[in-house]
Formats: sequence, C-alpha cells, structure tokens
Amino acid sequence: MGALRGNRLVRSDLLGVMASEKRDGGPCIFCDIAAHTAPAYLVYEDASTLAFLDLFPFTRGHLLVIPRCHGARLTDIPFADQTALIRTLDELCRRAERLTPDYNVALNAGARAGQIVFHVHFHVIPRYGEANPFHPASRTRLGEEEARGLVRELSQP
Amino acid sequence: MGALRGNRLVRSDLLGVMASEKRDGGPCIFCDIAAHTAPAYLVYEDASTLAFLDLFPFTRGHLLVIPRCHGARLTDIPFADQTALIRTLDELCRRAERLTPDYNVALNAGARAGQIVFHVHFHVIPRYGEANPFHPASRTRLGEEEARGLVRELSQP
Repeated sequence: MGALRGNRLVRSDLLGVMASEKRDGGPCIFCDIAAHTAPAYLVYEDASTLAFLDLFPFTRGHLLVIPRCHGARLTDIPFADQTALIRTLDELCRRAERLTPDYNVALNAGARAGQIVFHVHFHVIPRYGEANPFHPASRTRLGEEEARGLVRELSQP
Repeated sequence: MGALRGNRLVRSDLLGVMASEKRDGGPCIFCDIAAHTAPAYLVYEDASTLAFLDLFPFTRGHLLVIPRCHGARLTDIPFADQTALIRTLDELCRRAERLTPDYNVALNAGARAGQIVFHVHFHVIPRYGEANPFHPASRTRLGEEEARGLVRELSQP
C-alpha cells in the first residue's frame, strides 16, 4: 500500500504508477476521503479500495465503491486497480444483500452521463420496490443516526 | 476455454467450476448466445466473456458485457470470472468512447432492480445529451442496418 500524504495519494507500490499522475491538478473529494482528510461514513477499506455511504442517498444503504488511485473513468485506472475494485464491489454487493436482494450497480462516465465527482466510483443502490427512485431533486442528506446504523450493519465482513 | 456443447456451457478449465452448476435448470438466453446457439450482434469474445449489442437499446451503441459462466448476480460468479468481466468491461468502455465520451455502466440485480435476464450482465449505455433515455416503453428493436454498422465500429480492437 502506498503512503498517504495530506490529500494526495502517493503510491509507490507494485503498480509502478503514481496515482497522483492521474490527477488533473484540482482538488478531489474522493481522494480526500481516501486520505482520511475529508469525513465519510466508511464501511470498507483496504490497500487499493474503499467504500462509504452516499451522503445524498437515492435509497437506504446507497453506497459508493472507489479505488484509492485517482482516475475520472474506469478506463483511466490500471488493470490491477480495476481488479481490486470489482473484488470490493462484490464484497459490498454481498453486504447490500443483507438489506435487500435487489440492487442497482451504476457507474457514470462523463457529465452527460450524470457523473458529478470525477473520480471513478460504482454506486450500489439497494432497491425495496420503489418504481423509480432516481430523482436527483428528491435526494435528501443522510441523517446522522441512520448513517450510524447503516455503518454498523454494512461494515461487518 | 471450455468446450461448447449445445446450449450448455461446459467449462473444465482452471477455475475448477462447472458453469452449469450455477444454472437453475431453466433455459438462459445469454448462455445460448455464449454457446452460439442463439443469435446476437457480437462485438467481442474471449475465453471467459463476451459482449454484444442490446436488441432493444436505450441509446445508439447500447452494449451488454457478460461472463460465459452462468450466475444471476455478480456475487454468484467466481472471482476469476469477475476479473475477466471487468477487464472486458474496460475494453468495451474504451470502444464505446469511440461513439461518445459519456456513458452509463449499469448492472441490475433482482427483479425489483429491473433485472430481466438472470445471467449477470453489465450494460454500457452511450450518452449523447439525452435528458433521460431510460424509458423501457420507448425501446424499439435495433434495426439490421444500424446493428451492422455498430458491429463494424465496435468489434475492432
């Protein structure tokens, strides 16, 4: 695992890729979360990936799964990180199945596809029978108490 | 790569997993496509995965990326197949970027999440500026001529 320095993720591991090379030079909230310099309701972390609650969930238990290394798109990150990412996605899907057997997994690439944070991330969105929960305007901020309950439920291996 | 026998995919390779063990016993159109016993506009194929055009596309170039081995969910397939799947997903995202830099990647698990074919598949849905193309009722069947053009464009490495 690479060392975490401030809000820049410096990796000098086997990948031979400096994650910071992928940065466009601007700030990245997900890099900050990965570096623990920005707060998040983390439910999973390993050397290459992490997962945390979406602060404006479409449904209860809406999660984001990200690589530590910065890249806007799936196609921007090394294959080793893609592999780690799908392994973590699998783990978080298993945990989401504690809430409901039904869920959407989504990854948006580009502004016209709804991407807001330009650090690759998979959404895991549990579904409980809603006809269509994807109304951006109706997303309300996750409450502290609900978040703590979800972290308890979803952070267990 | 395992041998293809009729519409059952028999794998006796390094995974040590018989894909047919994952079947629920019923027919599976995606297993049939993988076995070449059902038609599809294939754009990519390797030992573990394939990709083809969605017959009822949300947008031009809507692709499906699947593992050969049968499993309803991502969490039902071995990690080796998940790894192969994200590698192929990366490849098809790169090809989709020939059409437009913007696209959604989606995987639906369970009927309440919109899953229709219970063989795990990632959608790759190019976006060209539509506000919201996800109206199931408005999906019309892909025309032969458009399909051939897309296959030409997307089957090149």
